[in-house]
Amino acid sequence: MARRSGRSTSPPTPRARIWIERNGKSALSESGADLLEQIHATGSLSEAARRLGFSYRRAWMLLDSANRLWERPLVTTAIGGRHGGGARLTEFGARVLRSFRDLQIHIEAAIDHETEGFRRTTRAERG
Amino acid sequence: MARRSGRSTSPPTPRARIWIERNGKSALSESGADLLEQIHATGSLSEAARRLGFSYRRAWMLLDSANRLWERPLVTTAIGGRHGGGARLTEFGARVLRSFRDLQIHIEAAIDHETEGFRRTTRAERG
Repeated sequence: MARRSGRSTSPPTPRARIWIERNGKSALSESGADLLEQIHATGSLSEAARRLGFSYRRAWMLLDSANRLWERPLVTTAIGGRHGGGARLTEFGARVLRSFRDLQIHIEAAIDHETEGFRRTTRAERG
Repeated sequence: MARRSGRSTSPPTPRARIWIERNGKSALSESGADLLEQIHATGSLSEAARRLGFSYRRAWMLLDSANRLWERPLVTTAIGGRHGGGARLTEFGARVLRSFRDLQIHIEAAIDHETEGFRRTTRAERG
């Protein structure tokens, strides 16, 4: 115990990372959802990547693997043009993104709900 | 679309990985919880590691970092002895483990509850 005294420790905080799996692979991750959102906001894959601090290569690969695992493309791209082509979230992509955000909200709510219970249990020792 | 036809794709399945964070670090992961459970079952860190397919080094490091981030040790170990010393889950460790399993159950329930909604949304396209 002595080696722990005097050290301040933040309370235990449950965290979760979620993703959508298809065929045993990640078909949409939290990073992927952020990318879809920024593509929708900017109309450009490179600008979306820049805003998120992703390399263009990483963003392109996220999108490519996501597109392969869904019945329809989540994003369509146009090659070339002055700004290196545009990227557009499809209606299907928008629906998948909304479902993912709904899921995140519900998981966060479950986490919040359990956090106090978790802390209470681990605090009981002091009573 | 043509490049997707004929390929069977499993339905979208939400997944989650949870952990407990303290001081910005993982204080208990799913692997860590499995390790605590197997230590409780076997009374031995090396046997617990073996059952989980972890190297002894990985198991030891998981345990060491967990022990540092909680007010009290989760596991106590005895050095030496015929089987390389025993390991014992403390009462506090047992309580943390139970809380972690409770949290997992509730998160899984939230995931299950959202899965059908998620699939319905992404299926709507076909109607």
